[in-house]
Amino acid sequence: MITINDVYLDNSATTRPTPEVLAAMNDTALNYYGNPSSLHRKGLEAEKLLKASREELAAALGVTAAELIFTSGGTEANNLAILGTVHSYQQRSRHLVTTAIEHPSVLNVFKRLEREGYEVTYLPVDSHGQVDLEAFKTALAQKPLLISMMLVNNETGAIQPVAAAARMAATLNPKPIFHVDAIQAIGKVNFAIRQSQVDLLSFSGHKFHGPKGVGALYIRKNLRITPLLNGGGQEGGLRSGTENLPAIVGMSRAATTTLKNLQTNLPKLASLKQRLAQGIMDQIEQVRINSSLTDGAPHILNVSFKGVKGEVLLHALESDGIFVSTGSACTSRKKSYSHVLTAMGLTPTEMEGAIRFSFSIYNTEAEIDYTLESLKKHLPELRRITG
Amino acid sequence: MITINDVYLDNSATTRPTPEVLAAMNDTALNYYGNPSSLHRKGLEAEKLLKASREELAAALGVTAAELIFTSGGTEANNLAILGTVHSYQQRSRHLVTTAIEHPSVLNVFKRLEREGYEVTYLPVDSHGQVDLEAFKTALAQKPLLISMMLVNNETGAIQPVAAAARMAATLNPKPIFHVDAIQAIGKVNFAIRQSQVDLLSFSGHKFHGPKGVGALYIRKNLRITPLLNGGGQEGGLRSGTENLPAIVGMSRAATTTLKNLQTNLPKLASLKQRLAQGIMDQIEQVRINSSLTDGAPHILNVSFKGVKGEVLLHALESDGIFVSTGSACTSRKKSYSHVLTAMGLTPTEMEGAIRFSFSIYNTEAEIDYTLESLKKHLPELRRITG
Repeated sequence: MITINDVYLDNSATTRPTPEVLAAMNDTALNYYGNPSSLHRKGLEAEKLLKASREELAAALGVTAAELIFTSGGTEANNLAILGTVHSYQQRSRHLVTTAIEHPSVLNVFKRLEREGYEVTYLPVDSHGQVDLEAFKTALAQKPLLISMMLVNNETGAIQPVAAAARMAATLNPKPIFHVDAIQAIGKVNFAIRQSQVDLLSFSGHKFHGPKGVGALYIRKNLRITPLLNGGGQEGGLRSGTENLPAIVGMSRAATTTLKNLQTNLPKLASLKQRLAQGIMDQIEQVRINSSLTDGAPHILNVSFKGVKGEVLLHALESDGIFVSTGSACTSRKKSYSHVLTAMGLTPTEMEGAIRFSFSIYNTEAEIDYTLESLKKHLPELRRITG
Repeated sequence: MITINDVYLDNSATTRPTPEVLAAMNDTALNYYGNPSSLHRKGLEAEKLLKASREELAAALGVTAAELIFTSGGTEANNLAILGTVHSYQQRSRHLVTTAIEHPSVLNVFKRLEREGYEVTYLPVDSHGQVDLEAFKTALAQKPLLISMMLVNNETGAIQPVAAAARMAATLNPKPIFHVDAIQAIGKVNFAIRQSQVDLLSFSGHKFHGPKGVGALYIRKNLRITPLLNGGGQEGGLRSGTENLPAIVGMSRAATTTLKNLQTNLPKLASLKQRLAQGIMDQIEQVRINSSLTDGAPHILNVSFKGVKGEVLLHALESDGIFVSTGSACTSRKKSYSHVLTAMGLTPTEMEGAIRFSFSIYNTEAEIDYTLESLKKHLPELRRITG
């Protein structure tokens, strides 16, 4: 077994920024350091670059620049989308809909809204981790104010029927506000935002080789939002605070690169996922593949290795320089079972042995083969100890 | 008159990050890109660096690491400090106290709280822009829940009697929560946070040659705060969202450099300010110096040039490569009079002609002399046109 340094298969937790992104950020920090609100040339140059970055990002996403605001990341974008519209339109309805498998930055906002007196329906998922559209239809009967449904689940890669759900919601009057957490989806699936009936869509720079500390929210025209942060009135009054221009430039650049190459990246990612899944199914016993190999997102493979604790296997792989996750990074420090795998109906044994492999286009087939060898090397011993 | 390129005298709007800060950020982005929440070594290395950065910042400020949380900037820190405690302790009192000269990221939070039904006292200031402690004493009689007072005003550099006010507040029972916006104060004045009776103190990285998109909030132990952002529970549950580690490292480094050199920087800044003020007073007629030359912050000089519009003078200076502000960057695009200069009782003519020069330790005496020459060159012509 040859040694390969640093096989990073935790790209759903975060990605490494590209040299191109870092170069753009450095250039901005040094040469466009003015405050975009300043009246002098250094301010205007920064403001122009901010405008150009917004337009670059809009073009990459196929939306208009006026529909995008920059935030400090995906968590803020999700919080602003949900709290900002629920508080703006609260007179319409007290009923809200989301799914049982959302990220904590969505789920915990709904927990807060429950404490404020809202009634929340958490849609169940099937054993593949996909939201049940029949249950969704039932929930629509209560005329919800807002629906929040993620596009790609961060633990399994399950693609949710967002476009179909948004079309169904759009038949109601008044049309419920439809929010999509697309944090795991940018550069990983095809989704035409403007052609959909979606009103709000969140994402985060560091999930597609852009910088940390920056995200964005797509807001369909004419939607009214109550800001979370009050202050200088930046971002059209919706997000006060001096603009983080280096990070905004870096994210827009990363989005352009990712989305320009989408049609070549998708099969590359899918082939890495398929290669590892096939190897595991062929050569390792007692596994459950928790990600769909036919219609899941191409960058996430979640596998339960029965008879072993995920965290123990994670550290065994780490000893070979392979970095994976037992679930989402945001909840990995908690010692409870994954809420996503629980919702899918996995047994405790299956949940305990779950590992998430998440790929980037910078991973190679050699790394996948090395990972498979490492799994085969460690599993018998680990299972003997546990068993 | 010799030509000097780019005399940047708008350091209160934002500063240029130092090469040392950018190098630390790049190293972090490339070599510590793991998610601090990940269980593997790349996560643990990132978490260790996060911990070290928090300790570095705490040591620079003379507080403990457990008392600091990182935010996306000064605006978020101010919003979190005020909203987070008011909402946590709302049963105590409906009365809040702040000053008429706060930054919009404080004032607009109080406007929001007024809409929520709180009663807010806005303390007046004298003609030097300093809060009146007699008025403060009167306001204390109403047993406020929270007091928010800036340490250094961003338009005039007036230092507020924060330590004295906090001592007075601490005699009440229950002790009102005392918040300080120190965004313009870090590296500009001596203030011993822990020795004061202050409970919360906000600041922002990009005001002292650190990065944009990052700030911090000092929170005295045992204070209960309701988070603004819900999600993965980072920053002890008070500020969810993947940590912006490169920016955090950059800010901590910048704070260390700034605070380590504080006692040599203060006289350097004061001498630049004094040199420009003296030159203006000696050589230019019809001016009002709006900043105290004896006890103001050393990096801000606000001057009213009567008979000229500030914005016109700003662009004249810009034509010589000198960058200044007409007020704070955050409100400069608004066409109304400065709320700070209004509170100080300036006449409309004085407010219209106000210019803020704000210095950094990287400015030179030659730049100050060049700026004075530029003022002397342009003012007669501009005043002739206006007059």
